[in-house]
Amino acid sequence: MPDPHKITRKVQFADTDLAGVVHFSNYFRYMEEVECSFWRSLGISVNISDGDGHIGWPRVAVSCDYARPARFEDDVELAITLTEITEKSVSFKCEFRISGVCIATGRSSAVCCLTQGAKFHSIKIPDEIREKLQATMEG
Amino acid sequence: MPDPHKITRKVQFADTDLAGVVHFSNYFRYMEEVECSFWRSLGISVNISDGDGHIGWPRVAVSCDYARPARFEDDVELAITLTEITEKSVSFKCEFRISGVCIATGRSSAVCCLTQGAKFHSIKIPDEIREKLQATMEG
Amino acid sequence: MPDPHKITRKVQFADTDLAGVVHFSNYFRYMEEVECSFWRSLGISVNISDGDGHIGWPRVAVSCDYARPARFEDDVELAITLTEITEKSVSFKCEFRISGVCIATGRSSAVCCLTQGAKFHSIKIPDEIREKLQATMEG
Amino acid sequence: MPDPHKITRKVQFADTDLAGVVHFSNYFRYMEEVECSFWRSLGISVNISDGDGHIGWPRVAVSCDYARPARFEDDVELAITLTEITEKSVSFKCEFRISGVCIATGRSSAVCCLTQGAKFHSIKIPDEIREKLQATMEG
Repeated sequence: MPDPHKITRKVQFADTDLAGVVHFSNYFRYMEEVECSFWRSLGISVNISDGDGHIGWPRVAVSCDYARPARFEDDVELAITLTEITEKSVSFKCEFRISGVCIATGRSSAVCCLTQGAKFHSIKIPDEIREKLQATMEG
Repeated sequence: MPDPHKITRKVQFADTDLAGVVHFSNYFRYMEEVECSFWRSLGISVNISDGDGHIGWPRVAVSCDYARPARFEDDVELAITLTEITEKSVSFKCEFRISGVCIATGRSSAVCCLTQGAKFHSIKIPDEIREKLQATMEG
Repeated sequence: MPDPHKITRKVQFADTDLAGVVHFSNYFRYMEEVECSFWRSLGISVNISDGDGHIGWPRVAVSCDYARPARFEDDVELAITLTEITEKSVSFKCEFRISGVCIATGRSSAVCCLTQGAKFHSIKIPDEIREKLQATMEG
Repeated sequence: MPDPHKITRKVQFADTDLAGVVHFSNYFRYMEEVECSFWRSLGISVNISDGDGHIGWPRVAVSCDYARPARFEDDVELAITLTEITEKSVSFKCEFRISGVCIATGRSSAVCCLTQGAKFHSIKIPDEIREKLQATMEG
């Protein structure tokens, strides 16, 4: 298993809710931030324009399990691993950690799509992207 | 099986992202809106203050499966059903529909907690609340 | 002076922050909601596609003055008035009210733009739109 | 005039809207991020608990002028300056820059408040905080 890709994200005031903790929906925004950082670490953007439209990765399934809350100004380590590549999709697992303790675990699956105007068409993952992704699974 | 509790939510401009569709994290905000509406329909708030603190319902697990996108100014019907009550937790299923077509399905589980300052303690669901919730499961 | 266009918006859980009140940035989202509702009341969308691109209204200036906080499940009345139309721009004023008391006042100015891909070009407000807007200023 | 306090903030996917740019309301979240970073640089948190409640800084007025859009993965420099201290309030100015070009200018004023449960009381800025703030105005 390869090492996960990691970033640290400080909890911002606007991320919290009246319970004094990070709103549960914001874990998905944090997870997207580390996913995009993972793509950039491979020299790819998660949003590529070409002549015909954009290549993007709409989510088809996401989940999160929460063990402990995160609070304002906590430094949350986000550790993401690519767990699966199929012909058209990728799946990630993300651990959220504070001071080394896992506070939540997220998962997401996304499909490679060509978007033209308002339409999305799923496509095979382009070879150049596939090769870079697979290299990360070999550690 | 009882009828779900339903509201209709118009997609707002700020709910969308550069792909021209509702950002995947916002489905969890929509789901929370219909959950809170469900609680209100029972005459309860999801956030109750008492002398000692607040009774709240932090999520322990959530998921969403996405079939089709939602776009600016779409009217999304949110249909929520209470699927399980345990001693301390509740679980919901939410269907997102546009023009009668299911575009996404969300699930969430939350634990009844007493919050005092920065601390959360899980507690048994108060009887008065349990009775109202169970009545909805009997249709 | 014409009557303002009004909607009522219930404060949602995700709108709040750890201070227990609606986060100050969300007033601008509420204001956008009533602006879009105002456009719809005239039979126009704030986002129109045509063959060449989209006609949209990016903000050039916004402000908000806050007098009292809004809290979870408050019903906030949003009352918007078109205050000025120039060749290319519109300006709005929005009052936020709870139980008839003004808790905040927002202002925004937006410029009519044609957007093509990543480019925005300011354009004269199309006559059909201008006429509908001006009719609202005559009361 | 002292040097502004600066951070760089990468535009995240969820910050954008269907026009392909950062939603105008998110500039206020960016501004809050650099404000909180400024407080931390002085060794203070913007949210201090004490025995009686919290000391916080609710906004009384904010504004933003927008000159050019910001897009996904842009690195936005946020440069904040404390522009005024009164007995109970502080005012900030924030420039948003991409590649050295100012794309927006924000302003905010906030009042020092003691919050106890659901109540906010404005108070004189504590001396220890005032001294640190004033030192930044002397450059």
